[in-house]
Amino acid sequence: MKTINLVLGTHNHQPVGNFEFVFSHACEFSYQPFLDLLEQFPKIKFAQHYSGVLLEWFQRNRPELLSQLRRMVRNGQIEIMGGAYYEAILAVIPDHDRKEQLQRLSNTIRRQFGTPPAGMWLAERVWEQHVTKSIAEAGLRYTIVDDTHFKYAGVDEHDLLGYYLTEEQGKSVCVFPVSKVLRYTIPFQSVNATIEYLRSVATEDGHRIAVFADDGEKFGVWPKTFDHVYKSGWLKDLFQTLSENSEWIRILHYHEAIEKLPPAGRIYLPNASYAEMMHWALPVRYGVLYEEFEEYVKEHGHLQKFEPLVKGGFWRSFFVKYPEANNIHKKMTRVSERAQSVQKRGKKIPDTTMNRILASQCNDAYWHGVFGGLYLPVLRYPVYHNLIGAESGLDRIEKKTKATVEACDFDCDGHHEILVETPELNCYLKPDLGGFMFEFDFKSISLNLLDIVSRRKESYHEKLAAAAREPGREGISSIHDLVGVKEPELEQYLVHDWYRHGSLIDHFFGPQTILDDVWRCKYDEEGDFVNQPYAWKTERKRGAITVALSRDGAIRRNGRSHRLRVRKTVRIEAGESCIHVEYRIENREENPIDLWFGVEFNVGLQAGNMPDRYYYVPGLVVEEPQLSSKGEFVETSVVGLRDEWLGADVQIGVGTPTTFWRFPLETISMSEAGFERIFQSSVVIPHWKFQLDQEWRCAMTHRLSVLKKKGKQS
Amino acid sequence: MKTINLVLGTHNHQPVGNFEFVFSHACEFSYQPFLDLLEQFPKIKFAQHYSGVLLEWFQRNRPELLSQLRRMVRNGQIEIMGGAYYEAILAVIPDHDRKEQLQRLSNTIRRQFGTPPAGMWLAERVWEQHVTKSIAEAGLRYTIVDDTHFKYAGVDEHDLLGYYLTEEQGKSVCVFPVSKVLRYTIPFQSVNATIEYLRSVATEDGHRIAVFADDGEKFGVWPKTFDHVYKSGWLKDLFQTLSENSEWIRILHYHEAIEKLPPAGRIYLPNASYAEMMHWALPVRYGVLYEEFEEYVKEHGHLQKFEPLVKGGFWRSFFVKYPEANNIHKKMTRVSERAQSVQKRGKKIPDTTMNRILASQCNDAYWHGVFGGLYLPVLRYPVYHNLIGAESGLDRIEKKTKATVEACDFDCDGHHEILVETPELNCYLKPDLGGFMFEFDFKSISLNLLDIVSRRKESYHEKLAAAAREPGREGISSIHDLVGVKEPELEQYLVHDWYRHGSLIDHFFGPQTILDDVWRCKYDEEGDFVNQPYAWKTERKRGAITVALSRDGAIRRNGRSHRLRVRKTVRIEAGESCIHVEYRIENREENPIDLWFGVEFNVGLQAGNMPDRYYYVPGLVVEEPQLSSKGEFVETSVVGLRDEWLGADVQIGVGTPTTFWRFPLETISMSEAGFERIFQSSVVIPHWKFQLDQEWRCAMTHRLSVLKKKGKQS
Repeated sequence: MKTINLVLGTHNHQPVGNFEFVFSHACEFSYQPFLDLLEQFPKIKFAQHYSGVLLEWFQRNRPELLSQLRRMVRNGQIEIMGGAYYEAILAVIPDHDRKEQLQRLSNTIRRQFGTPPAGMWLAERVWEQHVTKSIAEAGLRYTIVDDTHFKYAGVDEHDLLGYYLTEEQGKSVCVFPVSKVLRYTIPFQSVNATIEYLRSVATEDGHRIAVFADDGEKFGVWPKTFDHVYKSGWLKDLFQTLSENSEWIRILHYHEAIEKLPPAGRIYLPNASYAEMMHWALPVRYGVLYEEFEEYVKEHGHLQKFEPLVKGGFWRSFFVKYPEANNIHKKMTRVSERAQSVQKRGKKIPDTTMNRILASQCNDAYWHGVFGGLYLPVLRYPVYHNLIGAESGLDRIEKKTKATVEACDFDCDGHHEILVETPELNCYLKPDLGGFMFEFDFKSISLNLLDIVSRRKESYHEKLAAAAREPGREGISSIHDLVGVKEPELEQYLVHDWYRHGSLIDHFFGPQTILDDVWRCKYDEEGDFVNQPYAWKTERKRGAITVALSRDGAIRRNGRSHRLRVRKTVRIEAGESCIHVEYRIENREENPIDLWFGVEFNVGLQAGNMPDRYYYVPGLVVEEPQLSSKGEFVETSVVGLRDEWLGADVQIGVGTPTTFWRFPLETISMSEAGFERIFQSSVVIPHWKFQLDQEWRCAMTHRLSVLKKKGKQS
Repeated sequence: MKTINLVLGTHNHQPVGNFEFVFSHACEFSYQPFLDLLEQFPKIKFAQHYSGVLLEWFQRNRPELLSQLRRMVRNGQIEIMGGAYYEAILAVIPDHDRKEQLQRLSNTIRRQFGTPPAGMWLAERVWEQHVTKSIAEAGLRYTIVDDTHFKYAGVDEHDLLGYYLTEEQGKSVCVFPVSKVLRYTIPFQSVNATIEYLRSVATEDGHRIAVFADDGEKFGVWPKTFDHVYKSGWLKDLFQTLSENSEWIRILHYHEAIEKLPPAGRIYLPNASYAEMMHWALPVRYGVLYEEFEEYVKEHGHLQKFEPLVKGGFWRSFFVKYPEANNIHKKMTRVSERAQSVQKRGKKIPDTTMNRILASQCNDAYWHGVFGGLYLPVLRYPVYHNLIGAESGLDRIEKKTKATVEACDFDCDGHHEILVETPELNCYLKPDLGGFMFEFDFKSISLNLLDIVSRRKESYHEKLAAAAREPGREGISSIHDLVGVKEPELEQYLVHDWYRHGSLIDHFFGPQTILDDVWRCKYDEEGDFVNQPYAWKTERKRGAITVALSRDGAIRRNGRSHRLRVRKTVRIEAGESCIHVEYRIENREENPIDLWFGVEFNVGLQAGNMPDRYYYVPGLVVEEPQLSSKGEFVETSVVGLRDEWLGADVQIGVGTPTTFWRFPLETISMSEAGFERIFQSSVVIPHWKFQLDQEWRCAMTHRLSVLKKKGKQS
């Protein structure tokens, strides 16, 4: 009789800091009904991966689910897989943390379920060969990747029914290739399609292994799957049919497969993830080229044949594609390294601090494909929150009381950044790009006020734009047909920035400038101060740090250039939660000139128009909350922003009262639900029109304070 | 004025153990004349990389060249680049050795030239992102890769004129993309083509950098280049023209470029090497697919457009493609790890031993493209020689006197190998593949007698076969036209093995078998003992190790199967330079059966038909040397092989006198010079015809001894 071995697995995870209702929903519509059904079919063995985040949530919120899981593990029906506790991309975290992530989940699994895991789930299947060593050293004997990884390495389709051995420096790990066929048939085709496929690959010697592994959320959380999988009985039907055919479909646990069956061969896998991920990692222009390439190969009917040779980019390129993702990654690297160096100096890192560092490595905010990711403040917030919290923890261990300043290549771009750090705040400045402030951490509430994402071009934007522009043209969907456009006239918000937003950005507006054009990033910028290099000097004076930034640049008007010097001196003192900036604009030519100067600030509080998050003008008789729409505050010297949910109050004050523009910075990105507009930041630009003779001066203050929180959950 | 920065570099290297005449030739025709000419043009700055192997050779053989180099470094004309001392592929050697390789060359450069190198040459430009950390930690600030590496990462052609920053765990390194255009114009097009190209990319801001770096051997050693580059004055002309245009062509050293000019951006590079290498690393079938794919894209005129998306495989796949390369790599890993573990136990590793380990990592023997590489015994020999020498060194430190046996996964394929090691020899057996012996190290002369390569299919073989088969057919070159076929009727030697050659391989020949068919690997193999699993058991008895291998298999004849058990027991004792094997063949059926049984031995001495390397039959009145051609020795109980050059005497003795077949195992591979036949090993097969009633027995001995060497060079 021809038989086939079958290994089955699901991966369940929710990002650190995701909304409680998302956890509950996933539990109710997927994790729980899946287990309940599975338990009725004792012959169906399943491997399951739960990230540490999820196990903790269960412990707090669904202890009965954990008990059920323990029971099913004890019965031998479920094999629990390990992995990075916080579902980190192993290849891009520090060596030390890689070890910690794997060990923590293994230890938790041992504690919860009695035995350590035999293998692991690899987050987003992001493979780099060298991680093999960390996996092997953590005592994990197998992991699971896509069959495409194997195809890229030159393995034929028919050789994918088994596991392979790979190694790094003599340390071996087994790798299973997930069957693409089964990922499509389960649960999206008839149960029979799965059975027929298994029959087609069964052999007399019974050595082959069909591998299924996929997101657990596919069973109930993904759109329409709950009805299909549970209500219509698809999954029950699958389990039933597999149970009835157990004579020839031999369901094994992954660990049993490697114990009982010989490997199909040796393998080295190139950098890879799933095909879509490698496409997303490409720069936008190349992403488009890739699509065109795929079309071209398809057109000639060669896609199947040449598939192993059609592949996208490198996961780490997300850090080049999105400077904001790079900022997250480098901040994480910096904090982790600081912890290591503190530890090397013989001080113990408290577990809460170490935990915050590991939690910050949760991958979801580090990249963007078509599921929100980096674009979602709710995912980025916990990353910075954990990192800044860890910094405060390290401050306490190191008994930091003073302000420090460091010039180093924080973001690894070959230029020096200036990092001023006090127990109260971090102010990170980037001299080579207009001397702007790219990170502003408010330590008492562990918030980076500049955790924002600029409006960058995405390859899918063109679809939205084309639909709006040419609704009638053939091959172009009308905007109403385009799947998942979450609001009408969304295309109106398709703005692409030519510089990265942040604070202390120095603008010289042309005379015709209107707020709407500034919002659109299509105004007349006369100066070259926005993103060109500033010279810098740092100084410590009576405990205060000053960073003197200056640029000899020019404005261009009517084809002629007029030389200016902009000097901004940032002063920061320990004990204060604010930065003081002294601006001077010097005329480097004889003749006076009319200028329209503005300084851009960004305040990344968590939402746009919400009743508990608003603008206000302090000192007015009525401190009326103002919504986050486009507008201006006239003739004022302070503008405030409050986020009662986060408990943050932010003020921007200027020595010379003037008009402040404000507008919301909103990105348009894709998520499961389609195109959506995401609030990233409140842009605030005080601006002045004046004639410059010799020098113009203005002092500014950017102040943070803690509000008594209202309505904060849990 | 538009200007362009130009950085120039050459990489000079000869493999460890290469023939002296190759070193001398390269020196005379390239390294020396290049320097002499360069010195006449003091404005032309050049970066040069010399592997440690070459620097040592200069020190021994060309001290005056070294003096000249020192002078030119002192003058600032030459920048010396670092790298792996023994030109190892950084990504595949142990962490500890990676550090050692880089430091040793840096230290040598500091000693020889007064300053440590600022950057490094990356052997074969084999890039894996994680090596960044080792490079940075070794204090090296830059390296050089192909522009294709950058294209694969999604960098546009016009953004390739500069260097980029990359990082691993926050440690940064600058990477320069070599211009493909300059690699083609220098020295293969008119000098003007180079100048015109430089003119076309010069800019007003003068920030761009054109990068040239290539093998130094391109200037004089490559076919016809000596006449072109020196005799016809091409290089002089180039230097002259560059000197005259120094106003706008600003030649910089690499280290000056990173000091004076800002980086062009940040980058992460996927696994890559040069495009050809990635093609070669693919499995044969995929290599062919890749060629077809390239053709298909070319055919539609899209190659340039889609080039960044058309890429081959992963360098490490060479270890899957060639089990022999894997053997080298895993032996190296094993010996290196042993050294580390000895060191961790507080014993100092003598420098000579450490040096042997590092020398064994020289990349040339680890892979094969179109330049011999792995196929060349002259390159493999020093690798094993160094490793076995290092093992003897470690034996002395550990005071090893006994035989040891270990069952472990030496080759990382998921099966146990049995490794028997004594101070005199290593005998490595592979139970899962016929229990054959795949490595047989003779320690007193540091020689692996099974350092051989089987006759494996290469994609280029088809060209040779097609030319011979269908000389008239369109699109197929006639054999006479095919470039570089080094001997007539070479296609006669195109044999592909269905199993990996080695010793103690158990054959059952069909009645029609003739020697010629065995040589062709197209005879009737009746048994299933050649490469199917053997059970095994090891035992230590009075200091001797025995490995008992046995298989319950069968022979098939006329469609019917007859069950047999083959038992071979290998006995090894410390103090002896031989292995004893006791064969027993047991009939597992009632009826007797006629058998024709042979045991294959392979002896990888260094050449075929040479007067000082020959067969002999000991005990004959005239011990006539016999050449390594196909043939047989009738009715004898011992056959000997001598290599006077290596000083090795090898005997295969059998308890029951019989006929011994012999034939040369020869591969056909490509090298710079074209298709060539390479002697790999002497295959010796004693064989017996007998009727098996219940049991047949035969003792065999495989003995190694040291000859007084004659005629060994240096």
